[in-house]
Amino acid sequence: MPLFNNRKTIIHRFGFVPNLANFVILYDHMNKSVDKMKKILAILAAVMVLSAAGRTVAAQTTHRGSDDMKIGVAGYTYRSFDLDQTLRYLKSMDVKYLSVKDWWLPLNSTKEQMDAFKAKCAEYGVEGYILGPIYMRTKEQVDNTFDYAARYGAKMFIGVPNYELLDYVIEKVAKTGIKVAIHTHGPDGAAFPDIRTVVEKVKDPSLGVGCCMDLGHSFRMGWDVAKDIKKYKQWIYDVHIKDETDASKAGQTWEMGRGKMDLISIVKAFRKIKYKGVISVEFEKNGKDPHGGVAESIGYLRGILDATK
Amino acid sequence: MPLFNNRKTIIHRFGFVPNLANFVILYDHMNKSVDKMKKILAILAAVMVLSAAGRTVAAQTTHRGSDDMKIGVAGYTYRSFDLDQTLRYLKSMDVKYLSVKDWWLPLNSTKEQMDAFKAKCAEYGVEGYILGPIYMRTKEQVDNTFDYAARYGAKMFIGVPNYELLDYVIEKVAKTGIKVAIHTHGPDGAAFPDIRTVVEKVKDPSLGVGCCMDLGHSFRMGWDVAKDIKKYKQWIYDVHIKDETDASKAGQTWEMGRGKMDLISIVKAFRKIKYKGVISVEFEKNGKDPHGGVAESIGYLRGILDATK
Repeated sequence: MPLFNNRKTIIHRFGFVPNLANFVILYDHMNKSVDKMKKILAILAAVMVLSAAGRTVAAQTTHRGSDDMKIGVAGYTYRSFDLDQTLRYLKSMDVKYLSVKDWWLPLNSTKEQMDAFKAKCAEYGVEGYILGPIYMRTKEQVDNTFDYAARYGAKMFIGVPNYELLDYVIEKVAKTGIKVAIHTHGPDGAAFPDIRTVVEKVKDPSLGVGCCMDLGHSFRMGWDVAKDIKKYKQWIYDVHIKDETDASKAGQTWEMGRGKMDLISIVKAFRKIKYKGVISVEFEKNGKDPHGGVAESIGYLRGILDATK
Repeated sequence: MPLFNNRKTIIHRFGFVPNLANFVILYDHMNKSVDKMKKILAILAAVMVLSAAGRTVAAQTTHRGSDDMKIGVAGYTYRSFDLDQTLRYLKSMDVKYLSVKDWWLPLNSTKEQMDAFKAKCAEYGVEGYILGPIYMRTKEQVDNTFDYAARYGAKMFIGVPNYELLDYVIEKVAKTGIKVAIHTHGPDGAAFPDIRTVVEKVKDPSLGVGCCMDLGHSFRMGWDVAKDIKKYKQWIYDVHIKDETDASKAGQTWEMGRGKMDLISIVKAFRKIKYKGVISVEFEKNGKDPHGGVAESIGYLRGILDATK
């Protein structure tokens, strides 16, 4: 019969879990009083009894590997759902970051509408951490998008400008201080297929135009994604993660852990570069009923993060 | 421009991915012919080009850590759903093992009804790998349960006999060759709270009466679950896995990876003992709408298995 049932009781009584280091400190603090020493010895004995009995003295979770990264969801995932349902889904998975598509917050939203949007997100413990992706095909659209981001109070948004607008976008970044994470779209013919295109065209990483790296599309381009994360680390502002059925144009989004991407190496690469942004699951499969696949993917991502810390 | 686009092409052309070891073998096999040596050098050069370009030569998934374990779902999880919906859920998560509760296959089912049940499971790629848990409070119930298992063609079922029926159960196991995995129920007052109770009461591990170890309930009892898995490995016939909010009676089932159990150490323990049975997720939370939490848990389990191989 152990003296104390569990770690919590011990902490409650003594304010810490006794070990040798605590013991030495206590020894100094207690003026070597023999009576008090006996008490300390009793505590140590109790801890030894607990250990011997195999009771779970260390099972309470402290730091998890998944605490090292911010896990989010990319808005496209819940394209068939309104904001309330989307936020319920996020809350049910304890996901705190949503990448906000404009069907929930149109580009002409007023400051008041944006405040109401943020308040609703906050009710569910969610932060609309970034706006976009937003396509910009004219100068006017570039202006509108920067205004939209400014009203939101954003320091960055996800954008996809036509190539010929890139210089104008770079100017706007310099003027407004709002960065742009260009979303990469893979081998299907859209602008900026890959992080390489961003690097080639922007050239200078200090300009505030980087990448929302879509890891699935990078994989479909045939690249070694983990290697690219390390190689282009200073260009990665935001991330869309998923799994894919094939490392080719034919590849389709799949539940994470069941496709062909080496997601373990990918999360290790993010650890290696000490990535501080959000990693958002984007699940394009089953548009009308995606939630099971999203939850499975979020679980998988947490699992591999926990197991690789 | 690399000569070959990916690993698959290389394998298709040469039957293997060339590396130094293959090179040496080839060298021996090809009688040192200069022409053929040139070919080999060309292959090696191509591989070096591929590597230098960063193309994904090793991204195609081969063996996964989760392939080492059979992942299942315990029937109680989908207690509010009929068999078809349950099987659809399992298929959507690529889960191939279902622990079968009697609301889907009553104890008085005929052999024909059982065949129909199995055929329906097979349509979804699922095997009803074990029956139970079945409570046995009288000798007649013990007899009926063993008959039920025999008609199903089972080599084992999950049972919970009253303590006074244990000797009779042991007799029946000896007579029928059908093993019994006693489900452990934790600190709530039911029979067999813990694997220790099974060990203490059955005594001899060769009798064919072991344990369907409910890891959540073990955790709620305050035990170091990973340590117990290693200690009692010969007694573990089947497993119910989950997470719990607390290492006490007050603990409740939670989505795996978000409770307080040290699930990483637990899957490592199963690897250590080379566990060959099924690990079934049992998700008691949200009985009316459990699927998101189940999918998240299945994803988490796959993730930590993949990352710990």
